[in-house]
Amino acid sequence: MGMIGGGPGAFIGPIHRIAAELDREIELVAGVFSSDPGRSRAAAADYRIDPERAYPDLDTMFAGEAARADGIDFVSIVSPNHHHLTAARAALAAGVAVMSDKPMTASLAEARELADLVAQAGRPYALTYTYSGYPLVREARARVAAGAIGTVRKVVVEYPQGWLAGPAEGKQAEWRVDPARSGAGGCIGDIGVHAFQLAEFVTGLRVTRLLADLAAVVPGRALDDDCSVLLRFDNGARGVLLASQIEVGELNGLRIRVYGDKGGLVWRQETPNELTLHGIDGRTEIVRAGDASLGADARARTRTPGGHPEGYLEAFANLYRDFAGLLRGEAGPLLPDAAEGLRGMAFIETAVAASRDDAGWVDLTI
Amino acid sequence: MGMIGGGPGAFIGPIHRIAAELDREIELVAGVFSSDPGRSRAAAADYRIDPERAYPDLDTMFAGEAARADGIDFVSIVSPNHHHLTAARAALAAGVAVMSDKPMTASLAEARELADLVAQAGRPYALTYTYSGYPLVREARARVAAGAIGTVRKVVVEYPQGWLAGPAEGKQAEWRVDPARSGAGGCIGDIGVHAFQLAEFVTGLRVTRLLADLAAVVPGRALDDDCSVLLRFDNGARGVLLASQIEVGELNGLRIRVYGDKGGLVWRQETPNELTLHGIDGRTEIVRAGDASLGADARARTRTPGGHPEGYLEAFANLYRDFAGLLRGEAGPLLPDAAEGLRGMAFIETAVAASRDDAGWVDLTI
Amino acid sequence: MGMIGGGPGAFIGPIHRIAAELDREIELVAGVFSSDPGRSRAAAADYRIDPERAYPDLDTMFAGEAARADGIDFVSIVSPNHHHLTAARAALAAGVAVMSDKPMTASLAEARELADLVAQAGRPYALTYTYSGYPLVREARARVAAGAIGTVRKVVVEYPQGWLAGPAEGKQAEWRVDPARSGAGGCIGDIGVHAFQLAEFVTGLRVTRLLADLAAVVPGRALDDDCSVLLRFDNGARGVLLASQIEVGELNGLRIRVYGDKGGLVWRQETPNELTLHGIDGRTEIVRAGDASLGADARARTRTPGGHPEGYLEAFANLYRDFAGLLRGEAGPLLPDAAEGLRGMAFIETAVAASRDDAGWVDLTI
Amino acid sequence: MGMIGGGPGAFIGPIHRIAAELDREIELVAGVFSSDPGRSRAAAADYRIDPERAYPDLDTMFAGEAARADGIDFVSIVSPNHHHLTAARAALAAGVAVMSDKPMTASLAEARELADLVAQAGRPYALTYTYSGYPLVREARARVAAGAIGTVRKVVVEYPQGWLAGPAEGKQAEWRVDPARSGAGGCIGDIGVHAFQLAEFVTGLRVTRLLADLAAVVPGRALDDDCSVLLRFDNGARGVLLASQIEVGELNGLRIRVYGDKGGLVWRQETPNELTLHGIDGRTEIVRAGDASLGADARARTRTPGGHPEGYLEAFANLYRDFAGLLRGEAGPLLPDAAEGLRGMAFIETAVAASRDDAGWVDLTI
Repeated sequence: MGMIGGGPGAFIGPIHRIAAELDREIELVAGVFSSDPGRSRAAAADYRIDPERAYPDLDTMFAGEAARADGIDFVSIVSPNHHHLTAARAALAAGVAVMSDKPMTASLAEARELADLVAQAGRPYALTYTYSGYPLVREARARVAAGAIGTVRKVVVEYPQGWLAGPAEGKQAEWRVDPARSGAGGCIGDIGVHAFQLAEFVTGLRVTRLLADLAAVVPGRALDDDCSVLLRFDNGARGVLLASQIEVGELNGLRIRVYGDKGGLVWRQETPNELTLHGIDGRTEIVRAGDASLGADARARTRTPGGHPEGYLEAFANLYRDFAGLLRGEAGPLLPDAAEGLRGMAFIETAVAASRDDAGWVDLTI
Repeated sequence: MGMIGGGPGAFIGPIHRIAAELDREIELVAGVFSSDPGRSRAAAADYRIDPERAYPDLDTMFAGEAARADGIDFVSIVSPNHHHLTAARAALAAGVAVMSDKPMTASLAEARELADLVAQAGRPYALTYTYSGYPLVREARARVAAGAIGTVRKVVVEYPQGWLAGPAEGKQAEWRVDPARSGAGGCIGDIGVHAFQLAEFVTGLRVTRLLADLAAVVPGRALDDDCSVLLRFDNGARGVLLASQIEVGELNGLRIRVYGDKGGLVWRQETPNELTLHGIDGRTEIVRAGDASLGADARARTRTPGGHPEGYLEAFANLYRDFAGLLRGEAGPLLPDAAEGLRGMAFIETAVAASRDDAGWVDLTI
Repeated sequence: MGMIGGGPGAFIGPIHRIAAELDREIELVAGVFSSDPGRSRAAAADYRIDPERAYPDLDTMFAGEAARADGIDFVSIVSPNHHHLTAARAALAAGVAVMSDKPMTASLAEARELADLVAQAGRPYALTYTYSGYPLVREARARVAAGAIGTVRKVVVEYPQGWLAGPAEGKQAEWRVDPARSGAGGCIGDIGVHAFQLAEFVTGLRVTRLLADLAAVVPGRALDDDCSVLLRFDNGARGVLLASQIEVGELNGLRIRVYGDKGGLVWRQETPNELTLHGIDGRTEIVRAGDASLGADARARTRTPGGHPEGYLEAFANLYRDFAGLLRGEAGPLLPDAAEGLRGMAFIETAVAASRDDAGWVDLTI
Repeated sequence: MGMIGGGPGAFIGPIHRIAAELDREIELVAGVFSSDPGRSRAAAADYRIDPERAYPDLDTMFAGEAARADGIDFVSIVSPNHHHLTAARAALAAGVAVMSDKPMTASLAEARELADLVAQAGRPYALTYTYSGYPLVREARARVAAGAIGTVRKVVVEYPQGWLAGPAEGKQAEWRVDPARSGAGGCIGDIGVHAFQLAEFVTGLRVTRLLADLAAVVPGRALDDDCSVLLRFDNGARGVLLASQIEVGELNGLRIRVYGDKGGLVWRQETPNELTLHGIDGRTEIVRAGDASLGADARARTRTPGGHPEGYLEAFANLYRDFAGLLRGEAGPLLPDAAEGLRGMAFIETAVAASRDDAGWVDLTI
């Protein structure tokens, strides 16, 4: 595996590295860690890779790796959004598979272009919508699919954070509030799209219409930092998606509640190892990681016995494990693909445009 | 105290009776417990009052009580919404003060009429927005007012229930889903208005605009049972108000989160004796009933030492205690008054109309 | 109902008054609220009773009440422990039933004397072990009795408090740390005995042996403020009972966990409206007040719909409701009686003696 | 790194592998994964190491690795307890450092022998008391050391599990209930010693006396599966240590509460990313992973931003990171060393003997 982005000071690069290698099916061996060749090289030490394989740019990396017998077979793209298309295009052109951080690109137009490239290249392409890697999220999806809560009527998905309540400072915040690097969406593209993907992932439904109310609450901010979106799903179910980065005290409070005509379920990212199930008969069950009642998908994505908490890194690692399977030609690992990436970009752009134009309900098409 | 409504099978009548009498400042001694004289009389035994004072109708009660030296000085109105105006009008005409269940009436027009009557009568009139009686809600309001979270930027208030997820059955549900008795609002009038009042109560702000998305999710239902409302407050703060009665497994999950530029707070009705406070400095404090750090208002509304949970009945009793003070001429007990009742009705009707007409953002005026 | 004790400044008197009257089956009408006649009379206003019936001493009260057609039929004893026997003796001698705060008396010898008096008098006598009045505690007992967790093997009951971590100050603490008024037990008699009673109540088992380790941790304190007790039950089950009043930050953290060979259950007083049930098959269920799955006993002791929290006062009221039934001759309300009071006193004295003598395992006989 | 034990079916081998490699400072390259050479070799594929370095026995491994330029510099011992001494002796004899699973050995006598060997060898030796690797445990220790709760008076440490409530089945349970492989302690050696170490680690105090009540509750079991131990610390503080493996429904419920004369703290392994702090002034603070108020030690052992849960594997990895530092000669990483291992063995044997002999309070010396 090669990495694109993730240079000194980045939060997400080391996360990808740990997640990719956790199950020892993947090894980070190369990378272009920064658009600054010196910084890229400097990262070799941090990542403990051969300095020769910390390349100054994409072309050099793909050429260099192609020349090796043990060259990389995929790249992990962790650079800011505006760079995703360039990076993925270069990889696919070199015949190298792609695991990309979300969102897919910085714009829907770019995403369409990339989706076409993926289709032409015929190489695996997937997106790290991390939260879909949690075992209990897999369980939630499986239970909904099995009819445990009946027909879905209502979805409430919330993603509150507070870290951008003050002026953005530091590397991680910086590019996220800059339209040139982040794209048209701020909070909606950074975390709202996670909530969107999670809602579709758990319910198996598609959002068909939305009404968006986005704002830049912190004075001087160019991109939205607070988002309220009303949803309609393709089966007529109603939804609410809330995402915010100005809710002081909230860390990474993603949670989803899904209600059907026979039951309901609740999952929270900050206590990820349990899932609450409500029945229309008034019974409440707590399903915990490690329980015998878990389905095969959740069980296969758990590494420790019940009560030994697994968390964010392990959920992330589950996506990489699935990606390793995809590289081996295994089918059906529920990995977010280019089509799902396109939907995410359509969600972001539709929400941004609808909110800007105060357009009321608009269709989400793709 | 006399009661109007609350006859056999009603949930809320006994609740009012317990709450009113808890502090022994008030005693239930009379009532018209049902529009059916026989049922009204039958209730005397349930409430353990003198059967002579279980009257067949309002006129008889007010005449009978006026003739007694120890006649009632106020009534508690707990009948269905469409009866609130009639009952309050009769009481005020008899010079009797009124404590009314919410919402104020079945329509805004009725509410305006009643507000005028209250103004003319000069007798105490208050509404039992129960949740504003919780000590930690008082504390939340006091902390916000004292600047603990800075300028309010965002309010999220949710009121999920699940008891109407199936067909409405039984007495309590029956009138709530009948427009002739409930008014134009279903869920929005039953619980949405509680959330609305709580948001204004805690923040001290006023909602000025809203965008409403209401629906009757259960097939065949005439009134809304699921409500999503976006809000703007008079200081520019943004808000989300969610209320639903079809979220299976939710009992009475009212909760409010308020975020400012210096902090945030969270309160949940189902664990009402604690309040979470977040600071912009990253500190999180749990304030508990009984703590020395509580303000005077919260402390005065707590009857037991910390850790001995008080709940819904005690919160309700706090409103009656305040009302007893009002009858004695004490000022400022934060009791919801006719003006607040009017705002609630305006909220309900504005939301219903805006949703029906798909009107987008509309002003809330009153 | 008459009250003995509970004068100005006392915490528990008003609690008993509220609890007794909550269901309107009982009314506080008389009392000897203090051993100081002036203070007793002064309490009449606080309790809003006829000043004539705030008596200066027990004899005057029982004589005065006997002379009235509407005289009291029972007293509630809420004075410090050393006064319980005197008060109960006077009541029983006057043919008046007794509802007494726990523990039964200040010593086992006194308790034996009182138990004999109760047997001779043939009048109802009960103890307000409050926690056995919680609906979900009733449910826990019913579930254990029905075999839901199989044969009980292990009980862990904890009662942590922190309010005596510093020097005892104020009226409530004062007598509790004074052997002359409290008896030989401090923490063990104040709260340890609650935990003991709860363990026997929920399991239906009897403690037969114990090993106690009590200490006065706060310098200068004459009575124990921290207790660790190991238990054996009559079916061979093992137990641990922890009670402390020096655990800073703990409010009233009573909780019980019971494990059998087929399941386990957990109940916590500070979140009293839910009960967690674990099955040997790995399933975890949350039973909540208001759920349809609740047994008759729990359901009959709940006044509000699910999600409207009831708490300490309502649990207390359930005991008084049961006591009213007892006065009417109703059988079997699970009220703690004199025999249970005796066991409590035996527990206290046995634990105190065993700890003082470092006696290891000792029998608990009565 | 080489691994000793951890062959097919073992739970703990893969955990050590992941933990060791998480920060990419350590790589698993060799091992004797089973005493059965065939099974040892078979494990090479599972661990994805060179099959040549999956050795049939210890001697072959240490000889083979010594002959390589890139031979291992330490082993991780994850075999059953009775094999720890043999494995460690061989490693130390080969000049190879040792990271050993706990407890140190199968008996105190063995532990003494090993401690001597460690002292002579002068090579790093550490024990994976996993729970001391959690960032918030480090924070708890730092806060206690800094006087945040004053002088420690009371410690309650509990470690409930339920997985051995039925007959022991499967590989993991099997050796743990066999005295020949586990040593004299069952539950006390498997998890009780974790609780013991955690109590000393967090408080910085030493247990000097104990009173133990151990039992084999499940019929036919040869070793204890339920343990209640009373403690005294060297500053006079009192303690309770509870460990059980028959508490149905409990997963891995380790938790510790420490109370001083100025405050208290609570940490729970199943929600490891927060620490509750109580002050004598009645204030309660929740400290969360990622908070700015965290000390350097906790911050340095956190890999993700607040709200992105880290868990058991990351805590384990923190110990390996510290061990890597030790190998580089860095001082003071708080890693459990041979002296701490000895104390653990002394605790186990003292508790087992004291309980067997019903000896009451006994000294814990070492």
